[in-house]
Amino acid sequence: MPPSSIADVRVLAFDVFGTVVDFCGSIAREVEALGLGVDGEKFALAWRAGYLPAMQRVRSGELGWTRIDDLHRMILDTVLPKFGLESMSEEARQHLNLAWHRLDPWPDSVEGLTRLKRKYTICTLSNGNLGLLCNMAKRAGLPWDLILSAEVFRHYKPDPETYLGVADVFGIRPEQVMLVAAHSEDLRAARACGLPSAFIHRPREFGSRENRDVGDDPAFEFRCTSLVELADRLGC
Amino acid sequence: MPPSSIADVRVLAFDVFGTVVDFCGSIAREVEALGLGVDGEKFALAWRAGYLPAMQRVRSGELGWTRIDDLHRMILDTVLPKFGLESMSEEARQHLNLAWHRLDPWPDSVEGLTRLKRKYTICTLSNGNLGLLCNMAKRAGLPWDLILSAEVFRHYKPDPETYLGVADVFGIRPEQVMLVAAHSEDLRAARACGLPSAFIHRPREFGSRENRDVGDDPAFEFRCTSLVELADRLGC
Repeated sequence: MPPSSIADVRVLAFDVFGTVVDFCGSIAREVEALGLGVDGEKFALAWRAGYLPAMQRVRSGELGWTRIDDLHRMILDTVLPKFGLESMSEEARQHLNLAWHRLDPWPDSVEGLTRLKRKYTICTLSNGNLGLLCNMAKRAGLPWDLILSAEVFRHYKPDPETYLGVADVFGIRPEQVMLVAAHSEDLRAARACGLPSAFIHRPREFGSRENRDVGDDPAFEFRCTSLVELADRLGC
Repeated sequence: MPPSSIADVRVLAFDVFGTVVDFCGSIAREVEALGLGVDGEKFALAWRAGYLPAMQRVRSGELGWTRIDDLHRMILDTVLPKFGLESMSEEARQHLNLAWHRLDPWPDSVEGLTRLKRKYTICTLSNGNLGLLCNMAKRAGLPWDLILSAEVFRHYKPDPETYLGVADVFGIRPEQVMLVAAHSEDLRAARACGLPSAFIHRPREFGSRENRDVGDDPAFEFRCTSLVELADRLGC
């Protein structure tokens, strides 16, 4: 039986990078396919390592509102020289930057979302920009009812404006929106705004590097190893 | 052969009320089902008549940013007394106001969109708010790749920020977005921003009342009588 605290939930809001799609493996495959002799996983992790600091510059006000596409590009330009790729052309950089639009879903994602959608409204709540999330969904077959993004709220997670913004968009209470994410910090910030939480364990989020986030916070309503398991437990 | 001016189009952005869904017939049916002895079509048209003036109050700055759900409710409260329904309860008003989330598509809409989606990215560009458009799409089976709304841009059509905003979201040029609408004024405002245009003739938009907007502007790239015809002409 699901806990009573989620009896009123109508909307499931999903973190995307790492929770629904495998950024590390997808970026690594794109980089290795370039045939430049670069370790794809190391490159992917170096690129991703710039992500939180770049968003923090926006959250702190040091940078004005900047989309993830543009943050990814700023980071890419700093990562390329570290791998001896400073001579990469502008056109190739633009193409590689859009690898984030071409991330592959985890094997359970499409089936899980399709089942969850029967009973709930399913939306993204991602720091990815709208165009990125739309292109990703179209390519990967992610059946979102609505694509919501930090871009709509002009705030990045974990700012409260994002979690409360989902409830506001649907005209419902925060308790009626459950966040689904592979990241404890994201879920705790959502909980502080009143949203129930479902942790999805993704041990391979960082490829072969250990993922220490195992979702062991007992406050989370759910802890699952796939979106299919979440669908099972929600009776979808 | 489609005109050469649309060779680069990648995104089709759709007006929704009147173009994709039949607001007049849908609202009329909901009102008549209440069994209050009110002429459903007259009520629907009176409610809709308040729409442009209410948005104009937002566009002029007289009102701060206000969602269509809230504008619909303000108008509803002024329309009810004109039909002798001033005693309607708060709960009934809230339910009736959400009739705009339950609008039925025109008979060709789902098939046309499904075909157009194979070749293009299809999105809404509606003055309706995100929650309304999401609930509508889920109920009616409208297969949007992305739901965009005036709510994202904090501007109502025909403000240029809306048309240019679609191109900006996708990181493409205005010439790569075609607006599809049943309203010549909407299409002309989009054209002024560089977007190609497809007029869809909806003679029953206002029920039995004549719709004088027949899309006879020769500048429009397409003039069709259904979204299925548009799919045919675009080779989808």
